[in-house]
This record gives sequence, structure tokens and C-alpha cells, in this order.
Amino acid sequence: MTDTQQTTVVDTTTATTEDQVITPWEVSSVGGVDYDKLVNQFGSTKIDDALIARFEKVTGKKAHHFLRRGIFFSHRDLKELLDHHESGKQWFLYTGRGPSSGSLHFGHLLPFIFTKNLQDAFNVPLVIQMTNDEKFLWKGITLDEAREYTFNNVKDIIALGFDIQKTFIFSNLDYIQYLYPNALKISKCITLNQIKGIFGFGDSDPCGKYNFPPVQAAPSFPDSFPHIFPPGSDYKNIRCLIPCAIDQDPYFRMTRDVAPKIGFQKPSLIHSKFFPALQGHNTKMSASDVNSAVYLSDTPDIVKDKIKKFAFSGGGATKEEQEKNGANLAVDVSYEYLTFLLEDDAKLKEIADAYGSGKMMTSQVKNILIDIMISTSQRHQEARAKITDDVLKAFMSIRKLNF
Amino acid sequence: MTDTQQTTVVDTTTATTEDQVITPWEVSSVGGVDYDKLVNQFGSTKIDDALIARFEKVTGKKAHHFLRRGIFFSHRDLKELLDHHESGKQWFLYTGRGPSSGSLHFGHLLPFIFTKNLQDAFNVPLVIQMTNDEKFLWKGITLDEAREYTFNNVKDIIALGFDIQKTFIFSNLDYIQYLYPNALKISKCITLNQIKGIFGFGDSDPCGKYNFPPVQAAPSFPDSFPHIFPPGSDYKNIRCLIPCAIDQDPYFRMTRDVAPKIGFQKPSLIHSKFFPALQGHNTKMSASDVNSAVYLSDTPDIVKDKIKKFAFSGGGATKEEQEKNGANLAVDVSYEYLTFLLEDDAKLKEIADAYGSGKMMTSQVKNILIDIMISTSQRHQEARAKITDDVLKAFMSIRKLNF
Repeated sequence: MTDTQQTTVVDTTTATTEDQVITPWEVSSVGGVDYDKLVNQFGSTKIDDALIARFEKVTGKKAHHFLRRGIFFSHRDLKELLDHHESGKQWFLYTGRGPSSGSLHFGHLLPFIFTKNLQDAFNVPLVIQMTNDEKFLWKGITLDEAREYTFNNVKDIIALGFDIQKTFIFSNLDYIQYLYPNALKISKCITLNQIKGIFGFGDSDPCGKYNFPPVQAAPSFPDSFPHIFPPGSDYKNIRCLIPCAIDQDPYFRMTRDVAPKIGFQKPSLIHSKFFPALQGHNTKMSASDVNSAVYLSDTPDIVKDKIKKFAFSGGGATKEEQEKNGANLAVDVSYEYLTFLLEDDAKLKEIADAYGSGKMMTSQVKNILIDIMISTSQRHQEARAKITDDVLKAFMSIRKLNF
Repeated sequence: MTDTQQTTVVDTTTATTEDQVITPWEVSSVGGVDYDKLVNQFGSTKIDDALIARFEKVTGKKAHHFLRRGIFFSHRDLKELLDHHESGKQWFLYTGRGPSSGSLHFGHLLPFIFTKNLQDAFNVPLVIQMTNDEKFLWKGITLDEAREYTFNNVKDIIALGFDIQKTFIFSNLDYIQYLYPNALKISKCITLNQIKGIFGFGDSDPCGKYNFPPVQAAPSFPDSFPHIFPPGSDYKNIRCLIPCAIDQDPYFRMTRDVAPKIGFQKPSLIHSKFFPALQGHNTKMSASDVNSAVYLSDTPDIVKDKIKKFAFSGGGATKEEQEKNGANLAVDVSYEYLTFLLEDDAKLKEIADAYGSGKMMTSQVKNILIDIMISTSQRHQEARAKITDDVLKAFMSIRKLNF
């Protein structure tokens, strides 16, 4: 179950074990993704309470519930980034998305909701890369389809409320001119062997796949955006923070290896867990199985139906069992979705206590979730309806930002 | 002796034998390049008298001496191209150069002189690709150096007299935006195995090298130039003719394999032999050994000195021997240079007869060559001095052409 067509996995030295396969193109596991194992394999660092406290001190704001609840749970050089910010030096946020057909689903929102929170908290420029070249290379679609997906997805992203004064959204097909110099520098520093080791491509894969990682790496470096950081900027001292799901880490491990060789700071990273499929924790939501995910375009009836039918329950099989044993929150999808979507800590705790102890039934929890999902969808659709083609063009135009 | 840094040659299935190595990055041989063998290995076709006659019939002009003398000696689908032209359909010329530091040498002019002749004879648009990305990837230079080399070399090219109404010159670093869609389509159709087989790259080569062939292939397809062939053109019926030295054939064999898969005509090709080094026939002139080549910027004294000192002689070791046996024209570099540079067929035959039979001495032949080279250089330098930065910009600007 994956967002994209599978690639030939020959050797994923860092992320594939018997129990789980986590690559940018495949996320699957037996018995749930083991995030601790992943952090060990990838060599990143878990975010602890001390780091969250420092985060709150630097921003002067309560940390976003994604951070407090361990949904963004792992990082690289986040401490260094906070030091850099405190000393008043320049940095920027970089995130992205491989555009898919149709509407986004709730899982797709995660990195963007969190990134918007960071943008608001730190008042820094944000660049968002739409990898329509990747989608063309990996999926059986045309360039025109990849372009169309991009514009649809970008409207969904803009609808989340990004500040046009501080946000530049670009697609690789339209912006390659500016990425190419850094992509070349990166691709001169990495051997084919290294690409194979990091991404697991094989000799029978199209050669285009080998060229994509440098293109995803390029926006980590500030001179890829001369309209934001004009020539003459102190490029080697401008840092970058990349919020992303942890399956994207291989790209940025590669980027961090290369950075000092070509005169830049290593980008800092903050990793999220996956938004699970309705059917359970073993994987993330997938755009290719409509019943694995709730889409922002799903009607209230469909949302209701999907949650009722498909959301895996950790509750007792009967009312009596549930009252006796309570629900297993660790595998209950509706409860997990609430940890993502219900901001109110007290309310969430109340549900956890009641549902976990058998005082609440699965159907009640599902009803709470359904209400939140429907109202979130409706708010989103209203906001999205206001995103005209002109607004889209404005966000994607090459221009100075104000920050 | 090669124009560029050597690459790891792991497997050049089509062009490397015990006696000769011919790749886009290396030309060397024992006892002279065997062009018949190369034609067999590459699977191209030798140009015969019938094809030259047809060429002259279609253009209504005498064929260029490069064609008559077998300097452009091999082709792919040239007959089909001439049929296409006769039926009044659209086509364009595409050639290119990997920019080098300093001035061009005489060998570099070959494809451009011939291409200009074709442009004049057929009145078709011409696109010239400057592969500064390739030079960056293969040589130890910066992107800025690669850009500077480009502008210097382009001035030399423009000075050959190309018609600005029909000629578009671009560098990959500046024009990648327009090449990227076709480069992606090409790179989706070719496996890594195929790139390895064609170009001989290995797993310890930088991954950037693997991406370059699609970028050199892209200009073979007309929609890479929407300002010349606007959207809505009958792209699948616009042909392309590529004049190039035969070492560039691997790129275009690959391109021809891919063309029908992505909806285009296969490009036609016309291949030249190499302009030999002063030291002899075994290789081509090299930009990395100043004494192997005569540069367009060499002063008359240097030209004289280089020819006198280094041009390998096929004449007798003494006056008496030369008078008795005559010169071996097949290995005499000065005579071969005259076949490139002396347009007058009668004069050339006169020299061949006299020198070959011992009635002329090497020094006399060298003096004739020196005079031609010096006057060619001087004409070139005068023409080049008129190529201002504005003229350069005009040739490289994205604009409509008139043809």
C-alpha cells in the first residue's frame, strides 16, 4: 500500500528489515511501524521533552500538538537550528509534495499544517516543492497530467492558510532552471553506488530515477532561490529546516552528506510519523486505495460511511467486552485520528480515559471523529473555493518575499 | 589524448577494440582511426557518390568539399531527410559543442563550417547546444567557469558567419527549462543498464553523468524549441539533422532508439572524421595539449612554428629520399590539413601529385598550409572582434526565427 508505483527495491540498506519497509515509495510493516527502530536505522534523534521545552522558549509559544503528542517525533540538528534562530541569523523552511490526482486526504495535510505552524511561530520564508517530475517518472502518467495534479494539489495546500508574503510554491517542471545548478553540483558529488545504496534503485530502473534525488535535494540550499536570497547573500550561513514524513529522510541524509562539500549548511530535519490507513497502523494512508483514506473532498455521508465501516477498532468485540476490558488505544484508528485532529488536550484525555477503560463505546468515539472530520472538510472546501487561478499563480510566481 | 577528463570506461560495447577507443570523451588508436571499422561497429552507413549526387540535386549546389572529400563520410537516414526536404516538410539542424577554455582550434571548426554550409543550402533553422553542464560534470571546473567558456566559444562560433535570423544558440545551464520535459521523457525510456552499455559509465561514476545523455538528446526533438516550432506544430513530422564528429554517435543512437517511443521522428545524422593532431593521424586535436593543435588565436609566428616543428611528415627523411620515393600522403599531416582547409580541388590535386611523386618537398607543402592557416586565423579574428556581447546575447535570446 503505497502512494506511488513501486520501484525495484534492490538494496535499502538503511530502512528495510524483515518487519518493515520504509522508503520514499513504499511504507509497509508487520504489526505497525516501529518508529524507534526507524530512528535507530536512520540515525536520527528522537525529540524529547527538553527539546520541546526549548522550542517553546525560543518561540515564546506553546508547541503545536503534533510536537507535544509525538507525531513529529524525530529530528536532525534541530537544536542547532534553534541556536541559529536565537542568534538572529537567516533560515528558511522547505517542504514538498509529490502531486497526486484528485483531492488530498487527511494524511497529506500533516506536514503542511505543521509547517504553517512553524512559519507563523518563526516568521521565516517557506518554499514548497511540487515534485511533478518525480510523479511523471514513477507513475504511468503524462507530463500534462503531472502538471494538472500539481495545480489541483497546490490549491488544497494554499487553502490551509499559508501567508503569501512568506511562501513560494514551485513545481519542478516550472522551476528547474533555478534548481539545475545545485542539482548538478550535488550529482557531481554522489556516485551511482551511493544512490543505489540510499534509494535501492537497480540497473533495470529508468536512468531518470537516478537523477531525481539531486532535484529534491536542491531546494535545501538558499541560492536555489535568488529571488528570496539574492546573489551576494551569505549563502553558507543560511540554514534550512525541512519538516517531512520520515520516509523522506533518505533524500535529506544524502543532502546533508553533500552540503559541506559544496559550501552549504546541512539542512535540519523534523520528521513526522505516518497518518495510518483506516484499516490500521501498519501503513500510511494511500492515494491509490480510496477506502484506505478519508479525502478532503469526501461528502459528509462518505466520511461517515468510511469511518463507520473501515476505521479499525481497538474496542471490545461486544458491548459487554468493551465495558469489561476497555479499548486498546494503541491499535484503535479512530482514537489515533483524534490525536491528529483534536487539538483540545483535556478533551482528548477524557476520551482516552473513558474509551480505554470501557466507559465509552467505539461508536461514540467514531461519532466524535466523524464530526471533526466533516467540519474540517467543510472549512477546507470553503477556503479552497476562494483559491482562484490568480491566487495560485501569485503563490507560484517568482518574486521577492517579505519576512 | 582527449578533449576532456577521462571517464571510467567499463564497457563500451560498440566502439572500443584492441586497436582503437572512440567514445565522446576519448579518441585514441594504434596506427590511425579505422573509420570503416567504426562504421561497422556503430552500424551507420558510409556516404557514397550516389548520395552525394542526390544531395547536389536536391540543393542545386555543388556539395561542400568536406562531403566531396569524405571528411563527412558516414550517415544515418540522410536519404530519408532529403526525401522529407523534397516533399517540402519542416526540419531543422542541430549541432553543439562542449565549451573549452580559451580559443577554439581548427579542429573545432569542422562541424560548424559544414553546418553553416547546410544551413545556407537548405534554408532551415539551426539550433546549437553548448553543453556547459557536461563540462562542469566531467572536468574540475566551477559552474561560473563553464559559463565563461561558453560565452567565449560562442563568439568564435558566431564569427563563422551564421545567420542570426535562422540560428539559435543556447547553453544547457540557461535553457534547461525547455529541455527538461524531453530529457525526462527520454530518461523514463532508458534503463541504467542501457546507459552503461552505450557510454561505458560505471557504478563509481558520479550520478550526474548518467543524466547528461538525455540532456544532449533533448534538442533532437522540435518541441524543445517552442519559440521556433510553436505549440500546435505537427511535432511528429518535423525532422532533425545532426552534423557531428563520429564520436558523438552514441548519444544519437540512444536518441534514435527512444524517438518513436515518445512520438518523434528519429534524427538523421551526418558524421565527420576527426581533425588529426599535429603529431599524426592516430587521434584528433586536443584542447588539453597546446602543441597538438593550431588555435585560431595563435599568432602567425606560433602557427608557423607549430607546423614546422610538429606537423608529422610523410615525406622522405632527406631531400634525396623524398625526390626518389615521394611522400606518403596517407600519414602526412600537412597534406591532410590541406584537404580540410584548401577548397580549390585543382590546386589540391596538383599538390598531391607533386608531393606524392617527390617533385615537392615537405617544407613547401608546410608553407602553403601555413599561409592558409594564418589568413584563416586573421579573417576569423577580424570577424570575431565584431561579435559584441550584444550580438552574443541576440543569438542566445529566446525568439522567433525566420526561415
